[in-house]
Formats: sequence, C-alpha cells, structure tokens
Amino acid sequence: MRRVGIVGVGMSKFGRDTEHQLPELAWIAIKEALDDAGVDKRDIGFVAIGNVGGWSSEFFPAPIICEYAGLTPIGSMRVEAACATGSAALRVASMAVASGMTGLALAVGVERMNELETPQVVELLGRGGSFFWEFEHFGATFPAYYALYATAYMQEYGATEEDLAKIAVKNHYYGSLNPKAQFQKRITVEDVMNSRYIAWPLKLYDCSPITDGAAAAIVASEDLASKLTDTPIWIKAQGVATGTGNMTRRRDFLSLETAVKAADQAYRMAGVDRMNPVKEFDLALVHDCFTIAEIMAYEDLGFVERGRGHLLAREEQTYIGGLIPVNVDGGLKAKGHPIGASGLAMVYEGVRQLRQEVERSRQAPIKNGQVLIHNVGGTGHFTYVTILSLEK
Amino acid sequence: MRRVGIVGVGMSKFGRDTEHQLPELAWIAIKEALDDAGVDKRDIGFVAIGNVGGWSSEFFPAPIICEYAGLTPIGSMRVEAACATGSAALRVASMAVASGMTGLALAVGVERMNELETPQVVELLGRGGSFFWEFEHFGATFPAYYALYATAYMQEYGATEEDLAKIAVKNHYYGSLNPKAQFQKRITVEDVMNSRYIAWPLKLYDCSPITDGAAAAIVASEDLASKLTDTPIWIKAQGVATGTGNMTRRRDFLSLETAVKAADQAYRMAGVDRMNPVKEFDLALVHDCFTIAEIMAYEDLGFVERGRGHLLAREEQTYIGGLIPVNVDGGLKAKGHPIGASGLAMVYEGVRQLRQEVERSRQAPIKNGQVLIHNVGGTGHFTYVTILSLEK
Repeated sequence: MRRVGIVGVGMSKFGRDTEHQLPELAWIAIKEALDDAGVDKRDIGFVAIGNVGGWSSEFFPAPIICEYAGLTPIGSMRVEAACATGSAALRVASMAVASGMTGLALAVGVERMNELETPQVVELLGRGGSFFWEFEHFGATFPAYYALYATAYMQEYGATEEDLAKIAVKNHYYGSLNPKAQFQKRITVEDVMNSRYIAWPLKLYDCSPITDGAAAAIVASEDLASKLTDTPIWIKAQGVATGTGNMTRRRDFLSLETAVKAADQAYRMAGVDRMNPVKEFDLALVHDCFTIAEIMAYEDLGFVERGRGHLLAREEQTYIGGLIPVNVDGGLKAKGHPIGASGLAMVYEGVRQLRQEVERSRQAPIKNGQVLIHNVGGTGHFTYVTILSLEK
Repeated sequence: MRRVGIVGVGMSKFGRDTEHQLPELAWIAIKEALDDAGVDKRDIGFVAIGNVGGWSSEFFPAPIICEYAGLTPIGSMRVEAACATGSAALRVASMAVASGMTGLALAVGVERMNELETPQVVELLGRGGSFFWEFEHFGATFPAYYALYATAYMQEYGATEEDLAKIAVKNHYYGSLNPKAQFQKRITVEDVMNSRYIAWPLKLYDCSPITDGAAAAIVASEDLASKLTDTPIWIKAQGVATGTGNMTRRRDFLSLETAVKAADQAYRMAGVDRMNPVKEFDLALVHDCFTIAEIMAYEDLGFVERGRGHLLAREEQTYIGGLIPVNVDGGLKAKGHPIGASGLAMVYEGVRQLRQEVERSRQAPIKNGQVLIHNVGGTGHFTYVTILSLEK
C-alpha cells in the first residue's frame, strides 16, 4: 500500500455545544485542519464524513456539511462504524489517496448528540448493542453492556472498583490539562467511589459523557505530504476487524476479540513485536468509553499479560513516565465522546503529540516516534487500530 | 489508479419484501455474488455496506450483516450517499483494492424500506432534500422536489406530460422482461396519464416505488480478476461530485450540476468524447427516480443537446435498437428503488449485460463493450457516474 501522510488536523472544543449546528461544528475542525496543513480547500480531492447521526432530523449530513464548508463540488460520502466512525473516515480518506484517486483527502468526524435529551441519547446508543437480542428484550443500555465486562473481569482477576476508578482519575487529570476537553476538573478515587451507580459496578465517573464535537484530518500522498510539511505524520498501519454484535456469542467478557485481531493486523503491517509492543510506542490513545474498556485495551493491545491490566491502573503505569502513557488528552472519559468524531480526535492528539505541540504538562516524551490508536465501535462490533509514525 | 475488476455480482428479487430481515436480504445478494465469482467468503479482505437506514430500529447495520453473512472478522464499515449509496459502497470497495489494502473486496447495498408505512417512508425521504429550508418549512417531499424540475423543464423546452409518460412506459416494458423487477407489468401512456397526481405534473406512474432489496459486487485486483474469471468487468472510471442540498441555490431546475460534473470526470478518466458519448456505450443505466430525472440524465450525460432529452423519449430512441438503450432492466421506475442498493443493482445489470447473460428479450447488443451508470443522491446532492468496460 502506498504511504499516506497526515498533513493537517483540527478539532472543536468538546463539550455540550447546542450553539453550533452540525455543519458549523464540522467547519470548526475542518478550518483548523486546512490552516494547519496550509492548503486551500479547493486542493482537496475527496471528503469522507464520519457521522453516526440519529440525534437530529437531518437525514443526509454529508452534502449539508460539504456545502456549508464550501467543499462542493468535491466528491464525498458519509461513513459509519458506530463509535469507530472517525477511524473509518480516516481509512476511506487514506484509501482515496493510497489508490491514487487523489493526492489530498479530508476525513471529518462530527456528532451533535445533545440535540436529543439524555434519556433519548441513552436509548439510541443502547440500540447499538444487538438490537433484537439485547436491547429490545432486556432493555440493556451501553453502561449495562460494559458492566457485564466489568463484573466478569473483576470476578476472574480480582480487580476492584477502585482499580476502575483510577482510570477515571488519570483521564480526568489529563483532561484538566487539555483546553479542548469536555471536563477540565481533576477528581479523586473517592469522588468516583461516591458517584452514583449507573450499572453496577460502573458509576457515573466510570462512564464517558454525551458530547458534541468534531475532528478532522487531511491526508496526502507521499510526495505531497513531504512537500507540504517538514513533519508529516505517516499512517504506518491500520488494522480493522468486525465481530459479533451479540454479546451472548462472545467467547468471554474479558477481552474484545476484534481489538485483538485489529491489533494483530496493525502490528504485523508495522513490524511491531506483538509480545512487547510498549517499547515501540511513545503513547497510546485507547477507547475508554467506560473505565473497564481501557483496562481491557491494555491487555488486548498486549501492554501486559491477560489479567494484569488493572494492575497497570493500580500502579499508575499509564501516566507519563510510566510503562506507557495512555489517554494523555483525557480520553473519551474526560475529553468527551462525540461518537462519530472520537476516532479522529485520537488522530488529532496523536499527530500533535508526535509533533510535540501539546501543552507541556501533558506532552509525552517522543523517543520512538510512534503512537498507537485503538478505536472501538459498539460493544466490540468493530475495532480499528491505527499506528501513526514520524518515520515512513 | 490501479485497475479494479468486478468478478461477481448478486441481487435479490426487488419488491415489497417483509419476509426477510435486513441481513437476510443482504445475504441473498452476497451469496449470489460469491457463487458468481467462485470465491469463498474467507477470501474477502474488506466489506463496504451501503445502507441509508432510518426505516428500522437497527442502528448499526454493518456488523449485523457481516455477522449474519459469516463475514466476521473481516474489516467493514457502512457508507451512505443518499440514493447514490450503492455507488459509494462500490467506490470504497474499489479503493480498498486499488490501494493495495486487499486483493478482494465486497460492496453490498441493502435497504428494507417497507419496515415503515408509506407515509412515514415519504416523510423520511422528504428530509433528504434540504431539511431546514425545504422539508420543514414547506413540507416538500421527493415527488414535490422533482415536480419542480418537471415544471421548469416543460416550461422551458415544451415537453409534455406524455413525454414523461413514455419514460415510464419504456421502463415498465423492460421491467416486464426482468424477473427480478418489482413491477413486471406493461403499461401504456394512457395508464400513466390516468394515474393520480402525486405532485403535478408527476403522477403515480412517474414515480419510482418503495422497495426492499439488496445488490452486491465483488471487486478484485487486476491480477486476481484475470485469474478468477475470463470476463472480468473493469471499472474504467468513476466520477463523483457533491452539490448543494438546497434547491433554491441551484443555477436552474433543468439539469443536475453534480451529474454534469461527475460525468465530466468519468469521461475524462475513460477517454470518452464528451461531445458524443453515445457512440462509446452499448447501454446506459440512469437514475430514473422520477420520469423527469431520466430525461435530465440524457442531457446531463451528453446523449443529446440541452432541451432535447424529451425528444429522445418521444421518439423512443432509448429502447434497444435506438440511439442508446437506457434502463433495459426496468430502471428504478419498474425494477424498484431500495435506495441503498440501487447503485449496485445498476452495477449488477451492467455487468450481466456486458457478459450477455440477461434475458434475450432485453439484452442490448454489445459492440463497444462499455456501460454507463449514473446514480444520483438526494435531489442532486451527489452524483456518482461509473463506466464499466470489457477492456482494461
């Protein structure tokens, strides 16, 4: 596959934002990405819009966004892979470049979830499990799905609610240092433990919030990327796997098979040692839609052996200075989780970390020049794993 | 761009089908495509699911379909470009192959519109205009949008309702010869003229129906395509343009600018003479969501000069034996229009025409070895134009 480089990234301030319409939110991220890349929008050859939708009455978001952003008549489409939608948009934009169709493509992820009231959002997300078998019959919602993972994991490996809480504390800590994060407030383990149960053992502070936001990335062919910037960030690999949407068909509730498979693919493509990947990355951005999800990610990505992920949290090994810094932007937990944008918000952070452009207090030391991104859709329906690198 | 060949196609019987669930409908098309290509599903490297959705409570169709079809853990995503969704899915699958990501990819388009009652379907489709400016304020629905085109065209060029009716008569004629068409009943100009007005001057028989259906195509790299079949059908070009979703911002109501631009691109890529394209194609499959749309397509694609499209209909020049056969499968009008599948159903027909595999009564003579496909999303929000060819 031909090399593809990221030459510009943009992101709106995440949070509750009922002021901006969907295309306005998207434009904030697109404009920042265009400015960052130093390219004119007329140079873009293809646009992939990542948006799950369902919150608003707008049925066809892609042309509305393209028109508002002045991107017509450029070819476009909407892509969706549940909460991995942003990564899917990046993939389509990358394939447009790698196929030689265009030299420059734009991936945008955007979601405006607060158009609905919270109970409606929770219902809509709940449908993202297995609609027929889980949501409709049992009334399970997303916190309930991930609570099943949490209880299984705690039972099997002796993890505690405090271990989960430490993920939230870390991610809120980094969120407090990130001006674009939804929550910029530090919390303590006691705060998490005292927050109300949503689906036992998950409490309010174990859950990522409902968020409005957008993120964008501009990708370029090898030649163009090197011309446009001194620090193109190369997409060294992207793995993707699709799995069952039905939790009752999972092998166990201790791991996401799609994450393991997507990581296997990405590591193979990038020549990363599956047995010891942490030594090859400066940081990781993982899909912490719930605290338990981050712990499972540690194991699925091979940071530690099975059953030891919670010990990384307990021992604070995923702060900067530890074994591998994880979610130093606040993660979905504190930065926010506008589901169609989250994958590209990870890319935004990964690119800026590699360029050493983030706030000094949360800049990871860049030695290996590689960032690992893990973006899950549904309850593990999809996982996209992306490796960004300073080197081709 | 590296060559991509189509090695297998499949399609469900279009119609009102409340018997099959969405994944079952998709599987009918996928299975036929796999059998047609003679490949095992485990050989597929990527799946693009084209689905607009909104009709059912199922929020994330891609993993549900992949799981049902036994395509997990292959990477997948959903793509959407309104009524051009099928073409967008083909494009993503093609890019996956052309980028070198995989040798074999599957594009599936599927829609199950009859899950809702007709008034709800009409409402949901109506939102596909400009939601804020047209649907919500004026209550316009799709027949109303295209009625604006029809009245403008009739006023400017002297076309009559009978000219429009002749499109419906032709497409029903060919639908009567196509066992997979929703309507297999011939109609007369009188039948059309006597049918009730939906949005003047468009009558019931000027409108494509509400349809459940699926279509699929398997695309392969140049090497693999030539190994798998003696008659790979090459995707010689695909043009795509995005335009305003707001009809009040259109230059006029006589043409779809996105169709002109997408055709320009595709013709340039394939080396087709813009001034006289008909001589290079054996047939065309165009987006006749309403009869007026087919007449505009004749002009936007350059079959005749502006203002003369209706004369092609009047003179019956788009039957087999005429200037260029158009929609010899019945078109959206009679074959049916399951919106996420229609683009791939055109590909199904184009491939089978080039292989000379369709019913003899509707087989176009294959001399140039090229088929032109024109697939519109929204009221012209998107157009995808694809050229299929027997020759690389």
